[in-house]
Amino acid sequence: MKIAIYGYGNLGRGVECAIMQNPDMELACVFTRRKPGEVKILTDGVKVYSAGDILSMKENIDVLIICGGSATDLPIMTPELAKNFNVIDSFDNHSNIPMHFENVNTAAEVGNNIAIISVGWDPGMFSVNRLYGGALLPVGNDYTFWGPGVSQGHSDAVRKIPRVLDARQYTIPVEAALESVRAGNTPELAVRQKHKRQCFVVAEDNADKAEIERSIVTMPAYFADYDTTVNFITAEEMERNHSRIPHGGVVIRSGATGPNLENNHIIEYNLKLGSNPEFTSSVLVAYARAAYKMRSRGITGCKTVFDVAPADLSILTPEEIRARLL
Amino acid sequence: MKIAIYGYGNLGRGVECAIMQNPDMELACVFTRRKPGEVKILTDGVKVYSAGDILSMKENIDVLIICGGSATDLPIMTPELAKNFNVIDSFDNHSNIPMHFENVNTAAEVGNNIAIISVGWDPGMFSVNRLYGGALLPVGNDYTFWGPGVSQGHSDAVRKIPRVLDARQYTIPVEAALESVRAGNTPELAVRQKHKRQCFVVAEDNADKAEIERSIVTMPAYFADYDTTVNFITAEEMERNHSRIPHGGVVIRSGATGPNLENNHIIEYNLKLGSNPEFTSSVLVAYARAAYKMRSRGITGCKTVFDVAPADLSILTPEEIRARLL
Repeated sequence: MKIAIYGYGNLGRGVECAIMQNPDMELACVFTRRKPGEVKILTDGVKVYSAGDILSMKENIDVLIICGGSATDLPIMTPELAKNFNVIDSFDNHSNIPMHFENVNTAAEVGNNIAIISVGWDPGMFSVNRLYGGALLPVGNDYTFWGPGVSQGHSDAVRKIPRVLDARQYTIPVEAALESVRAGNTPELAVRQKHKRQCFVVAEDNADKAEIERSIVTMPAYFADYDTTVNFITAEEMERNHSRIPHGGVVIRSGATGPNLENNHIIEYNLKLGSNPEFTSSVLVAYARAAYKMRSRGITGCKTVFDVAPADLSILTPEEIRARLL
Repeated sequence: MKIAIYGYGNLGRGVECAIMQNPDMELACVFTRRKPGEVKILTDGVKVYSAGDILSMKENIDVLIICGGSATDLPIMTPELAKNFNVIDSFDNHSNIPMHFENVNTAAEVGNNIAIISVGWDPGMFSVNRLYGGALLPVGNDYTFWGPGVSQGHSDAVRKIPRVLDARQYTIPVEAALESVRAGNTPELAVRQKHKRQCFVVAEDNADKAEIERSIVTMPAYFADYDTTVNFITAEEMERNHSRIPHGGVVIRSGATGPNLENNHIIEYNLKLGSNPEFTSSVLVAYARAAYKMRSRGITGCKTVFDVAPADLSILTPEEIRARLL
């Protein structure tokens, strides 16, 4: 199947790498809003086109993976592109998903295409596991913890403070809360009890570090409700120790069964990701395969990870899956 | 939807409890191969019938959950019943699944019914997670660890040793192996390196305990390839400390992404189950809902957990799922 990439940043590069790991796929082409000549990709012999030229490539693309931002790109791009292509996106603004779904669904139905939105790990694999957990253990509680990992939004917020040159913010689950949930307790956890925040900051030479720290830990919404530690480091330390983009987290369903709910069960789905964008990209590519298979069975309209049967994600045949994995 | 139970042992009782947790379901009736008058169930006003009378109830049952053993019951029962009912089973003889699938598929197609086989946690949720893991991280390794938990087969094997009155065998993952895999190593693990076995044995008063221990730890296939510890206890201790049937385990996918595979990722699915049969029953009931929804869309034939989209397991509407869980 021929997969194209729309937008070539961290996520687009990750998609390109993931396609190389899947021998049933080939990269058809890459679209960019930059000048195509200035975008250098990894795959030999594959062309980069201007985003504006995409309609001319319509016949050469089975599924288009849209690698844009959720704030302003995807709400416009995905409905527009779904009119002409089978598309996948990673729209992650949870509260706007129902509206995005409706817009994309209308466009995909008009174009007789399939679109799978909000693909990644949260939303995405975490969502699937929240659903499985609740379906298997209807009497129970859901817990989602994020991290340890880099939050781009929180890092950006720190970078905007005057005299801060660079910053990296790690979101870290509070171990005591995690252990309590894993032990089968079902605690009610306040925001501060679930996650803590750790910042690494490069400041200007003669900056007032105490003032910067105060600005961080009191920042409403981002930090004020959390226990936050701030570490000032050099630019070299930042480069050496904090250039990767790890992330991860945990979805736990804690439930009970039996005539008197006397048996407790814990279902935990745990991700430790060396690279947040590369893992997200790998999920996008697996769901691109599903989109291809589902469309070839005549399925159109907007779908989410909830609508995709696991078998459609696999490169293996149904017979192989049953013999090897069941 | 009206769910019926075929076979009322540990699993059937668990199914009955699970149905009570799902307000969109009701227990239609229970079938037994014992005398119906001797089977006492938990649900008021629901009748127990002889297994032989099942065809007379055909119009009152949407999905039949077959709670039989995999060795001799299900290979006969599931194809036979799939001719007349939508059915779910927990067939768990991994190497015979392809043959069972074919037999059930033929029968279900003849009867225009849907059948979902090999539902539970392994096969079942573990299988689904092996599939997701391999699809998301094609370059990587799979690991499955079982336990800590009671193995019925190994407990039975110990009980058959002369002068053993009762026995309980726990399968326990080797912590060092588990930690190595979680740390992103991809070790090749021999049988002995993955699991150890712990036996609790009630022996006759003047039995030769050393001889019993020797019989256990040298038993081919069951114990000889494992590090096994044997503890002799009293019947009272057995009753007090070992009457529950916990189980669980872990499926891990360890994979790498990036142009030079420089980023490692760990996906872990972890179950800690207070009651093995009750959790299996809960999974069976969730897939009974999926069978009902899929059949109402015209889908027939034999399916497995790989063919079931997560949304079909949920009591929630598609809109509710997207708004609350995505």
